[in-house]
Formats: sequence, structure tokens, C-alpha cells
Amino acid sequence: RIMRPDDANIAGNVHGGTILKMIEEAGAIISTRHCNSQAGEPCVAALARVERTDFLSPMCIGEVANVSAEISYTSRHSVEVQVNVMSENILTGAKRVTNKATLWYVPLSLKNVNKVLEVPPIQYARKEQEDEGKKRYEEQKLDRLETKQRNGDVILPVINPEPHTVGYSQSSLIHLVGPSDCTLLGFVHGGVTMKLMDEVAGIVAARHCKTNIVTASVDAINFHEKIKKGCVITVSGRMTFTSNKSMEIEVFVDADPFVDEPRERYRAVSAFFTYVSLSKEGKPLPVPQLLTETEDEKRRFEEGKGRYLQTKAKRQAQMQQAAQ
Amino acid sequence: RIMRPDDANIAGNVHGGTILKMIEEAGAIISTRHCNSQAGEPCVAALARVERTDFLSPMCIGEVANVSAEISYTSRHSVEVQVNVMSENILTGAKRVTNKATLWYVPLSLKNVNKVLEVPPIQYARKEQEDEGKKRYEEQKLDRLETKQRNGDVILPVINPEPHTVGYSQSSLIHLVGPSDCTLLGFVHGGVTMKLMDEVAGIVAARHCKTNIVTASVDAINFHEKIKKGCVITVSGRMTFTSNKSMEIEVFVDADPFVDEPRERYRAVSAFFTYVSLSKEGKPLPVPQLLTETEDEKRRFEEGKGRYLQTKAKRQAQMQQAAQ
Amino acid sequence: RIMRPDDANIAGNVHGGTILKMIEEAGAIISTRHCNSQAGEPCVAALARVERTDFLSPMCIGEVANVSAEISYTSRHSVEVQVNVMSENILTGAKRVTNKATLWYVPLSLKNVNKVLEVPPIQYARKEQEDEGKKRYEEQKLDRLETKQRNGDVILPVINPEPHTVGYSQSSLIHLVGPSDCTLLGFVHGGVTMKLMDEVAGIVAARHCKTNIVTASVDAINFHEKIKKGCVITVSGRMTFTSNKSMEIEVFVDADPFVDEPRERYRAVSAFFTYVSLSKEGKPLPVPQLLTETEDEKRRFEEGKGRYLQTKAKRQAQMQQAAQ
Repeated sequence: RIMRPDDANIAGNVHGGTILKMIEEAGAIISTRHCNSQAGEPCVAALARVERTDFLSPMCIGEVANVSAEISYTSRHSVEVQVNVMSENILTGAKRVTNKATLWYVPLSLKNVNKVLEVPPIQYARKEQEDEGKKRYEEQKLDRLETKQRNGDVILPVINPEPHTVGYSQSSLIHLVGPSDCTLLGFVHGGVTMKLMDEVAGIVAARHCKTNIVTASVDAINFHEKIKKGCVITVSGRMTFTSNKSMEIEVFVDADPFVDEPRERYRAVSAFFTYVSLSKEGKPLPVPQLLTETEDEKRRFEEGKGRYLQTKAKRQAQMQQAAQ
Repeated sequence: RIMRPDDANIAGNVHGGTILKMIEEAGAIISTRHCNSQAGEPCVAALARVERTDFLSPMCIGEVANVSAEISYTSRHSVEVQVNVMSENILTGAKRVTNKATLWYVPLSLKNVNKVLEVPPIQYARKEQEDEGKKRYEEQKLDRLETKQRNGDVILPVINPEPHTVGYSQSSLIHLVGPSDCTLLGFVHGGVTMKLMDEVAGIVAARHCKTNIVTASVDAINFHEKIKKGCVITVSGRMTFTSNKSMEIEVFVDADPFVDEPRERYRAVSAFFTYVSLSKEGKPLPVPQLLTETEDEKRRFEEGKGRYLQTKAKRQAQMQQAAQ
Repeated sequence: RIMRPDDANIAGNVHGGTILKMIEEAGAIISTRHCNSQAGEPCVAALARVERTDFLSPMCIGEVANVSAEISYTSRHSVEVQVNVMSENILTGAKRVTNKATLWYVPLSLKNVNKVLEVPPIQYARKEQEDEGKKRYEEQKLDRLETKQRNGDVILPVINPEPHTVGYSQSSLIHLVGPSDCTLLGFVHGGVTMKLMDEVAGIVAARHCKTNIVTASVDAINFHEKIKKGCVITVSGRMTFTSNKSMEIEVFVDADPFVDEPRERYRAVSAFFTYVSLSKEGKPLPVPQLLTETEDEKRRFEEGKGRYLQTKAKRQAQMQQAAQ
């Protein structure tokens, strides 16, 4: 679809959240279609996880987004989908790859939302494809267990914070989950959640560096818990790390099922977003260093540095591999 | 959240209706949460009334709106909520108060929408807070009875009206109530109604003075009757009074439950909006005087003058009090 | 309502699809109201057909659209509605007619969606009005049978197409039908479908001529089949014909009820859109000629030429009649 003014920031760059939402919609469609392709209990595919995704180049208002999706692996109860986003300037005809993403879906019964159904297996062209898919499946399973443990943290307000401290840029928003946010099962689309997360992360980044910012990448996101229609969700973000030219922001989503259900507020999702600051010509600008004050902030900064260096090393290894 | 191009007029000023909608969403969330805080029948808080609110300074595209809400009084069956809106330029970090509003909600049972539930009482820091709240409660109760009587009026089309007459600028729009306009109970959010009312009032004001206009204040609004999903609502506005630099517009909302229910069209809400005209530099401009023709129009003009002078006197009294 | 940035293209011209959506909303409201005007089974009017409509002049951001609707004929099971759209510049007060459209609706029972109810007859001022209405009714009935047969075609992707060929500009989008797209019966509003069709047609036109384009007219559209909530719809467009200054694009809508229903993908709607290319001053520009390659493309080009010449002849006849 064509990118509209409301999809973009003041500088005309489309929000990463808009792109994540389109990616998730494509993934939900292809995996729901696949899981219903054999006669049996009707179901809706729910997003369980998005793998780390890089935003290779920013999109602009008026460009057309081409989203294509393909199922790359099926386990007994989950579907792996590869989604590619190409942006096309329809006036010049120029096209470029904007995003590649990998998503995991789980089919839930339309009649009983707590029942996970079986996934019809796909055919692989080569045996190695199945083996590689299985390896990815095992890896993400492990990683999901890990983030589940990290989920206890909360963000507290700070009075009169100094510029460039964590408290200075931390932000949160609340959103009442309405019908248009939800799937046929009455649960929030994963894409809607990701769009809100990107919105908060973008506010944190802009508050910190006070320039035009764009999403550079999103770390793997795990959707541990569904969020029901009528919930209030609180999306909170705080900066955890800065390199010379990038900022890492941790975002939490808490759901508050305050009507109709005797249940406590719970952590539904958390993730790391990386932002860069762009000059008017679209070049990356230096970013003010994050000032850490508490022990927790210093620890999180070091952890963020670890993720940054790991990603950098991985990218260099890939480039060397590509150059061989 | 960040203000988008669709939230604003051509001059980049955010519509008052967008701000009213955010205020009401915040009020609905906090009061619904409070009314469900004790075990008992689940409920949804429905907007009963918004007190007069002033728009202290216009917001612009790209600014972030910070909305905070607090419960200030509870009667047996209603909740009073104070909502503050701060606008923040995230690039400069500058913040200012945009709005302060007081809203009254009533908890309706999720199982039986016609049943008003009891509100859990709040604790007051000082006895005077409870007494002042009670006084506000009694005052609004009286005022709600009064507007109920005024509600019989209708707006008729005028052929070939002269510029600056009432008929020249009067306007109306219709809207089919869809699922995304409604609460869990299937009734229109008060904030959605107020946004439509501001849209019509803005069109009336722009037709009259043909310049860039912004909402300056909204008089108390009483929500006498709920509006159900599937209704068509007609929102009509006509100018009632002009001072040198302001315009008062009366707005009616009529609901037409034309499907599924054997019921006549009825008046659901009515209110007065005050608009000012702004120059390119954001200074208030003189406004052409409203030409009244009929006896009714002259009477409404005088009544509007009364409200204008009363508000002016109240504001001067507050400023003197503040100066002491 | 006021036209917003998201309603328009980059040049500030409001999308034809936005206008079609407003027209259909007005038609659905007036015909649903009429069909429920007598005691009996409650119903919702579903769009069956839109007659050919011309976009007489483009609307711009900030203008107000005035939509008025009137019932002009009723048969036993259908309602004909005339809708007029006027655009008004509220700053200058200038008004002009933007569109005139004729729509046909059929009342479906709210309790049993497959049951078509009877329409209360309207009163005609003159006997000729009824006769002319009956003639229009018979004509559209014939035409609906014809398009039903044409509906088998599909659009296949082309690898590395040459500029200005059919394959070069053909486009498609998918959309997951959500609650806010649907009527009370849980089926997609005809207006939502037409807005998506116009979006795809606009992308095809822009890809072909790489300039600012606007919708000039839409041929009669028949809605053969309803589309249910939860379906995925694929909207595909391909260019069929170019004259010196216009482009004809054929658009198909296919619905895929992949959840909850054991049914194949089916063709729900198809139509022809005509676009023109505009200079910065709003004058029509010459359009590159469409290069046809296959026999089918050549045949469709000739058929498009037939429609183009027929419309041109009809318009000239009308102008001569008006001049007499």
C-alpha cells in the first residue's frame, strides 16, 4: 500500500512500527491460511515471536510498500514465516529492500482459544532446508525461555531528571484495546503491539537526542501472553545503551485486564529497539552518550554494549562470508 | 502520543476534538479501573458529563501529548476525574499545559447495561476535599437537569443565506456508528462524540470568518442518552454569539436508531464551543459580527453574551485571587 | 467532513476512493433507513451496484465534502439512491459539484443474512418518474448478468517487464477484513471495497505514467458476492487501454474465506477505473501509450477503446441535447 503522511514522522520517514505492522499482517494471513488448508478445526494463527530484524533503508511518504511472505518451516505446533518488504518509488520505478523478517506463529482453535492445533507439514525442496529450519526452531525455543525470566522489571517515574540520563528520556503511553486492534479471536494483533512499541521507543530516542530519528533494528520479540479486547495496555520505554551513532531502547508492554476478568496486570511483551539519528541529508549523526546513574542502569548499559558488539561481529562475519 | 497530520488543521494546529477524545479515553480508563477495583459485578464507566474546559494553548503536529488523570471525588453512583494534558516539543524539550478537564462517569454493568452499579469510595487526604467534591457534585447535578429542558431545538436549512448570518455558517454531518467508535458495551465513546462535535463547530467557525480557527473552550457537556452501535448520528452546529475576538457555536447530536429498535430519533448531546480566529503568527484576529435575523436568533445572541460576560467576570475574579 | 492529508495523494488531490467511500456510506444510511421505515423485520441495506460515475473536478485537502442522498426508485427488492457530492472551500466559500452517483441497494434481514426483504414503495411526484426508474432498473439488471460472465480472469506476475507494457504497471494488494470494515451484518461495506480498488488502480496508473494522477471516472461496479469479516481480499489491477490523455484500469477483488468456512477463493467484484495525469497546474497531460503484447491484451485494448468511444459519443450527445 501507499505510505501516507500519518505513517511517517515530520521528516517524512515512515515509522518502523508501520512497517512491522504490515509485516505481521502478511505473516498472520499466510500462516492462518496454511493452518486452515486441511479440513479440520478452524483456527487463527497467533504471533509467538519475531526474530531480530534490520531496517535496511528508510521508506518515505508516497512510496509503495510491497510485502511478500513465504512459509519456510513448520514444526508440530508452529509455523515459521519469512517476510520481505520492498519499497518502490512509483514515479521513478526505483525499488529497494527495506526489511527481511522471520516470524513464528501458533494456530489457536477458533472455538477454544486455549487449544493449540496441529500444523499441516510443508514439503521441502531439499532435506537441508528442513534441518536448518529445525535448528532455527530449537534456537528460538531456548531464547523464549530466557526472556521469560527477564520480564519482572518496572519503570518508575523520575522527578527533574538531568539531560541524557535514563530518567530524562523514559516514556510511556496507555492504549485501550478496541475491536479494530483485534483478530477474530478477540486478541490484539501482534503487529498492533509492535507499532505501539516502536512509537514509544521513537519518543524515547527523540527526547534523548532531539533530532530526526529512525528505527535501525528490532531485537527478537517474544509474545508470551495474549492481550484481550477491553484491556488497557501500558507501553513503557527506557534507553539502555548508546554507541557513537546508535541508541538501544528497552520497551515493555503490560496488560491490565481491568474489566470482566479477575486477573492482575501482567507483562505481555518486551523487546529492544535500536535507533539512529539522521541529518537532513539522511546521514547518521553522532548521538549524545547515555549518562547512567544507578547500578542497574550501569549493568543494563554493559549488557546493551554486549548485544551491540555481538551484532557488529555477526555482521562483519556475514560480510566476510559474502566477500569470499 | 505524537500528534499526526490527520490530527491537525491545514495550519498545523491540532483539533480541539482530538484533544477532547484523548482526555475522555484517559478518564474512561481510570474510572473503569476504579469501579472494577473491588470484587463484584464487572462494569464499564460511561461518560455522563464534561465540565467547561479551556484550551490554554494550541498543540502542533509532531508534539507529544502527555495525558494524566486522577480521581478527585466519588459519589454513590458517579466518579469525578481530573485530566491534565501537557504538550511537549520532544526536540526542544519545552512543555506547557494545554488543557485541564473535569469529567463525570457512571459505572454500568457489563451484563445489564441499564443497571448503574455502586462506586467504591476513595480516601481523601483532608475532609475539605470531600466537602468541595460534594459541592461540585451537587452543582453539576442541577446543571444537568437544566440542559435537559433546553434540548428540543432543531436546525433547519436556509436557502441563499447572506454572509455572516446564522444560516450562512450553520453546518451538519452524519456518521454511521461503527465498532471502532464503541466501548465494550456497544455504545459510542463520549470522546468520539465530542470529536465529531468539534469538527462541526470548526466548520461553522471557518465558514463564518474564513480564516484559520482554533477551539478556545468548550462549555459543560451533558451526555443524557447513550448512542448504540449501528445508529446514525447527525451532528449540527450554528453560531449563537460573537464577541470582538471569539465565536460561540451551539452543537447538537441527534441519534437515529433506524435498525433493530422501534425508537424515534432523539437528542443525545448538546454543547457550546468557543472558537477564536488566529493570524499566521498565532495572534487572535477580530471576528466579523454575527448578523441575527429572527427573534430566536436575537434571544440566543443575548444568552450567549450572558455566558461570555459571566465567563469573563469569573476569569477576572480568578486572576485577582491569584494576584493576592 | 473536512478532507485530511491521509485522504489525498502527495499533490494534495483527494483520492477518488475516499469520495466513493463517502458516497456509499450516505447511500447505505438512507436506504437502510427507508427499508426499516415500516414495522417489520429489521434489515441492513447491502450495496448491489454502483452506476458509472464521473469525477467532475478534484477535491483538495482542507475542503469540506457535502454529501446529499435521495431515493429515486424502489423495485420490490431493491432501492435506487442518487448521491451528490459538493466540495466547498470554507475559506473562500466557493462550491462546486464533484460527483453524482447512482447506487442500488438490497435489504438483507438482520436475523437471516441470506433473506432478501421487501422494500416499502416510495411515492412519485409524476408517473414518468416511476417509468424512467423502472427502465433504469431493467437496464442494470441485464448489465449485472453480463459482468457476472466476464469474471473468470486472473492476473499473473510478469518477470522483468518492459516499460509501458501491461505487466510493467500491474499491481495487487491484500487486506485482512477487520471489524471496522464491516456492517452490522459482518460483511464488508461496499465503500471500503471501492476505496481499496481505487488505491490499486491509482498505483497502476502512477506506475505507467510516473506523474500525478487522479480518478476521472469509474464504470458501473457490480457486487455479486458478499465478503465476510475475517476474509483476506486480494485486489488486483492491470491497465487495459490508453487514449491520448486517459488510462483505463481493470480491477478485480477476490475474497479468500480461509477461516471458519469450507469455501474456495472467489471473485467478489470487478470494475474499470479511468485515470488522467495532471500537470502541476492541474491540466491534463498526454499519457504514454500502453504496449500490448499478447492476443488477450490486444483484445482487451480494443474492448477498452470501444468503451472509451461509446462514453465519448454519449457525452457529446448529452452536450448537444443541453445546447438545444
